[in-house]
Amino acid sequence: MSFEYKLKKNCCDTKARVGELSTPHGKIDTPIFMPVGTKATVKSMSPEELEEIKSQIILSNTYHLYLRPGHELIEEAGGLHEFMNWEHPILTDSGGFQVFSLGDLNEITEKGVTFQSHLDGSKHFISPEKSIEIQMSLGADIIMAFDECAPYPAKRDYVKNSLERTTRWLERCIAAHTRDDQALFGIMQGGMYRDLREESAQQITQFDLPGYAIGGLSVGEPKEEMLEVLDYAPDLLPEDKPRYLMGVGTPFDLFEGVMRGVDMFDCVFPTRIARNGAVFTSHGRITIRNAKFKKDFTPLDHECDCYVCNNYTRGYIRHLIKRNEILGLRLTTYHNLYFLLDMMEKIRQAIKEDRFLEYRAQFYKKYGLEE
Amino acid sequence: MSFEYKLKKNCCDTKARVGELSTPHGKIDTPIFMPVGTKATVKSMSPEELEEIKSQIILSNTYHLYLRPGHELIEEAGGLHEFMNWEHPILTDSGGFQVFSLGDLNEITEKGVTFQSHLDGSKHFISPEKSIEIQMSLGADIIMAFDECAPYPAKRDYVKNSLERTTRWLERCIAAHTRDDQALFGIMQGGMYRDLREESAQQITQFDLPGYAIGGLSVGEPKEEMLEVLDYAPDLLPEDKPRYLMGVGTPFDLFEGVMRGVDMFDCVFPTRIARNGAVFTSHGRITIRNAKFKKDFTPLDHECDCYVCNNYTRGYIRHLIKRNEILGLRLTTYHNLYFLLDMMEKIRQAIKEDRFLEYRAQFYKKYGLEE
Repeated sequence: MSFEYKLKKNCCDTKARVGELSTPHGKIDTPIFMPVGTKATVKSMSPEELEEIKSQIILSNTYHLYLRPGHELIEEAGGLHEFMNWEHPILTDSGGFQVFSLGDLNEITEKGVTFQSHLDGSKHFISPEKSIEIQMSLGADIIMAFDECAPYPAKRDYVKNSLERTTRWLERCIAAHTRDDQALFGIMQGGMYRDLREESAQQITQFDLPGYAIGGLSVGEPKEEMLEVLDYAPDLLPEDKPRYLMGVGTPFDLFEGVMRGVDMFDCVFPTRIARNGAVFTSHGRITIRNAKFKKDFTPLDHECDCYVCNNYTRGYIRHLIKRNEILGLRLTTYHNLYFLLDMMEKIRQAIKEDRFLEYRAQFYKKYGLEE
Repeated sequence: MSFEYKLKKNCCDTKARVGELSTPHGKIDTPIFMPVGTKATVKSMSPEELEEIKSQIILSNTYHLYLRPGHELIEEAGGLHEFMNWEHPILTDSGGFQVFSLGDLNEITEKGVTFQSHLDGSKHFISPEKSIEIQMSLGADIIMAFDECAPYPAKRDYVKNSLERTTRWLERCIAAHTRDDQALFGIMQGGMYRDLREESAQQITQFDLPGYAIGGLSVGEPKEEMLEVLDYAPDLLPEDKPRYLMGVGTPFDLFEGVMRGVDMFDCVFPTRIARNGAVFTSHGRITIRNAKFKKDFTPLDHECDCYVCNNYTRGYIRHLIKRNEILGLRLTTYHNLYFLLDMMEKIRQAIKEDRFLEYRAQFYKKYGLEE
């Protein structure tokens, strides 16, 4: 099964690039943002709506699905695509990040991680082999190596030990992975230390994998530190493979990531803020609960062409969100995802036409961001 | 503006009848079930989905909209249709039922009702004139007279006084109502007392209104008592006007109501139970949370042709409902409304073909109901 990545064009003036990644469930245009469907559903969205807003690939979380409803059940249902009625590409993470951030961590050893479920306190053990076993049961197109995402801040020694173990775990993931209809991506760690990022990249790229991720960013560090790492980290990964920056998803982060050579992004940010009533507009983020929108019978974003902006007003959506009505969450989520995916589409177009920096400048100016 | 009701056909063997009611926003085939959109949204459903399942008319609640976001705001938005993006017929209730059931009631006088909001304890006064004023602002196609729905059980004297006041209030509603693009329906009360039902019907039908409702049923009385009243109540209303049985909506109630000459129904029942994971099937109601559906990868209802049954399994929907995922509520709600509306469509068809009783017998047998 082929997971070919075709690098189609570099933009003349930055490291931004457009490409195409083939998967068994379809091709993905990069750079791309992947909506997050933690529990086998992108919160509030139907698969048809995800298609409508041109989601080409979604992400789902191994940790959550392993705990509930269980990967065996999903395998019995015919895999995650079948289970959730989504016939396009899916990426699953390894569960590592959630084990460290959500679970009540008991112990990390060379063998794996023992933790207690955040749901019921039950005890679990996940090793690289187990993570791959789960991800093979789920059957996503792209699966991730089991890694440790070191916390921020972390001492150099801790990060070094952790990344080296992550490399050893990667080797075990590769050995355990037997499905040729899934692409296994390796994950670079190394925290905020340039030499450790280099060490990690050098180690994981020894394995000829179909793609690589940059992990350990957007974990609480100041934005400047993240950008500092992003200035060099993508270059440490092969040019002919897709590069995936994990857990990142504000408009600013996406532009800055793309400009530095990143191809794939995911984040709960657009959907999570939507459920709190915060929505993207061409002129910056607004909080729809604000009283000033009470009698505002204009669209969320005057320049947006989505279903929500074509049919509903700020005043109505404010009413729905204030009253905790499900349709309110649906509309803000739909709009926010549309906004980001549309922005990515325009970014790809701009790269193709050698005007990425102009588009970025124009977007930032309107949105109220500083370059 | 015409609100013509055309009685098209009586079924040979019962009082069941099909008809057509014209409103400024379109025609309604009767008998019909009206999904309830309490706060200007049928919980979890988009207007397009309501169209998809062939909702011809929806109901919205005056009491809730008066409190929040306020009828003036909705009027400013261009009325309820415009506000909620629903271009088909709407019926609003008078607020009376909620004032009595939800509000902290302070006083009923001849003038009107003083109550405290169930939301913030603020004090309000609603009179027949005020209810009509609010409903004129909302701009529904069909509006309801302000009545008192007497509690169950209630003493004869109480019910008699109450229904007579309701008649006097009706007269004031008629005087206050000035929009000719709205049909004002009167409401029969009288509790479980046949002679009081007769008195009420006789009084309200003195006014030539475009439709009449049967109020004060499904308020806690045993099913047999409700059916007893339904055996004669619809006949007390004019044959050439639509008859609306308020707040009733189980499959059994709909069949029994139709059989006794009722044309319109509304109830939160199908949508409320959906959010608890209870769904209608051809073979009776099931609770999707039940462990036995965990690995059931078949549709909610094998005989249903709706979007949900064509695309999702019981196992997946159970997972979503158990995890409180919004898509779960969407799918169960969609299916339940489809099921009821489809049943009503089949009832209309059966009446047209003089086989209503056969269809009822067939439905009851499969569903597990006794005739």
